[in-house]
Amino acid sequence: MDSKDETEGHGLDCSPVYVHNPHLDALKDDVLYHFGLGTGTHDLPAMFGDVKFVCVGGSPWRMKAFTKYIAAELGMEDPNAEYPNICAGTDRYAMYIVGPVLSVSHGMGIPSIAIMLHELIKLLHHAHCTDVTIMRIGTSGGIGIEPGTVVVTNQSVDGTFLPRFEQMILGKIVVRNIDLDQSLAEELLRCSKELNQFETVMGNTMCTMDFYEGQARLDGAFCSYTEEDKQDYLMRASQAGVCNIEMESSVFAAMCKLSGLRAAVVCVTLLDRLKGDQVNCSHEVLDSYQQRPQKLVGYYIKQQLMAQAGSS
Amino acid sequence: MDSKDETEGHGLDCSPVYVHNPHLDALKDDVLYHFGLGTGTHDLPAMFGDVKFVCVGGSPWRMKAFTKYIAAELGMEDPNAEYPNICAGTDRYAMYIVGPVLSVSHGMGIPSIAIMLHELIKLLHHAHCTDVTIMRIGTSGGIGIEPGTVVVTNQSVDGTFLPRFEQMILGKIVVRNIDLDQSLAEELLRCSKELNQFETVMGNTMCTMDFYEGQARLDGAFCSYTEEDKQDYLMRASQAGVCNIEMESSVFAAMCKLSGLRAAVVCVTLLDRLKGDQVNCSHEVLDSYQQRPQKLVGYYIKQQLMAQAGSS
Repeated sequence: MDSKDETEGHGLDCSPVYVHNPHLDALKDDVLYHFGLGTGTHDLPAMFGDVKFVCVGGSPWRMKAFTKYIAAELGMEDPNAEYPNICAGTDRYAMYIVGPVLSVSHGMGIPSIAIMLHELIKLLHHAHCTDVTIMRIGTSGGIGIEPGTVVVTNQSVDGTFLPRFEQMILGKIVVRNIDLDQSLAEELLRCSKELNQFETVMGNTMCTMDFYEGQARLDGAFCSYTEEDKQDYLMRASQAGVCNIEMESSVFAAMCKLSGLRAAVVCVTLLDRLKGDQVNCSHEVLDSYQQRPQKLVGYYIKQQLMAQAGSS
Repeated sequence: MDSKDETEGHGLDCSPVYVHNPHLDALKDDVLYHFGLGTGTHDLPAMFGDVKFVCVGGSPWRMKAFTKYIAAELGMEDPNAEYPNICAGTDRYAMYIVGPVLSVSHGMGIPSIAIMLHELIKLLHHAHCTDVTIMRIGTSGGIGIEPGTVVVTNQSVDGTFLPRFEQMILGKIVVRNIDLDQSLAEELLRCSKELNQFETVMGNTMCTMDFYEGQARLDGAFCSYTEEDKQDYLMRASQAGVCNIEMESSVFAAMCKLSGLRAAVVCVTLLDRLKGDQVNCSHEVLDSYQQRPQKLVGYYIKQQLMAQAGSS
């Protein structure tokens, strides 16, 4: 299968969310098992039809905090509202909605975010959503940049610094395109300059399958390489344009591209991996760092909604 | 690196939990970031030194339910006890302890359980635990067996039916041995016969990186193959001895083998994948199925503790 054949056109006046699965039509009901939702049990168009922005991140707590933040930013906060978890029937993911903004947690790693994205893309499809922008707001390790810097991903790359994602299907490897939306990345970088509250850079993001050995850490349960080996690997990553390392961007980019979702990855760096491996800054500092992608993405969403309101 | 060189001897009278990392000794404090624990902030030997059994599973709710169940089984329940989450400072994993039994959630997929296992192995090492048995109690899709059947894994295999786990280290692939403890698997099968409450089989378990395309499902957001392709793939898996499919067993087996932990994988099947893809049985049926691995592992732990009490 050629990845180009899988990708449908984009840039229409009204872009739907594409599924690529002829079997879905034959399903009487579609159970979105890991969300605890389904077409037979929930009115998905009524619940989600107005969604225009989806923000995803690993931690359920962070996605609830983002929901409160964006509600206040958009003037949609309700002092009595509890922002109930839409996926309260399961503990696999948490989901919150405020106005046109849906927030969903995805856990850690490629398989966990992939399950979520399969069900999210089907949810947006069943809900007849159009013109959806999706942004991952995450944490990462930086390479040679100050902790607290926000990285807007230019290109996701794998552990060999190649821009590719390998998906095994029926025992065979299919290589997928993982290009993100360049114009969205540039708009986010522009927003960060206007916001002017923290350093933001654009760079490549390395996506790994493991936090310890997979990211050349020296502090895992197992480590068979030296400090010099680690520095050499990270320097080669840096020379390939890698600014930060996380664990979800490649499959996120691949699946969003396939489904026609305008997608960006915005991660704050919690440490400089050239100087250490342990995440040991204070809770307060960690908290303030984690709010930065939320602030940037919140600013962008607010601008977009104001521009739309102004033009309508 | 040869996987045999990484594996230390096992079967001593008193088996420690091995880390294989010369750099750990140089760390002043070791922050177990995703647990919200650390050697500088917590007295790990006092908290965990008596642990002899570790049970892990994807869902935090299930691991809390297991803790309540095992407490009652071992006569250690306290009607006033709330079984506090030891990792309450983070939402990445949940951890509970009752007597010598530690329960930890691991999320979904290889990267998520790998992060947990790196930090769990370091925790057991720092706590000076010895003779630890670890069991994954999970859910899975069955191939050609009745839903509700429990599978004790004989051998974990990948999506091409090979018994191997590939770990990328410094951009290069290292292949790791994923043999599980055969005597433990046989003891669990014997326990199931004694318990005689549900069907239990021993078989190979296929470990995939994705729940939808990676497991030949027809109900994901994307599907480029036919029902016949799916059936052919699953039948080939079945011919290779695969009884069920899940998403964590290979790296679990690899990391437990490296660290000298006696390990088993015990998963219930929620559906027969030859007959369908959607998990759509009722909440009550799902609940009762998910209790089966807990019951089997609980029975085994109780027997072991009674045998030890009898011999001491």
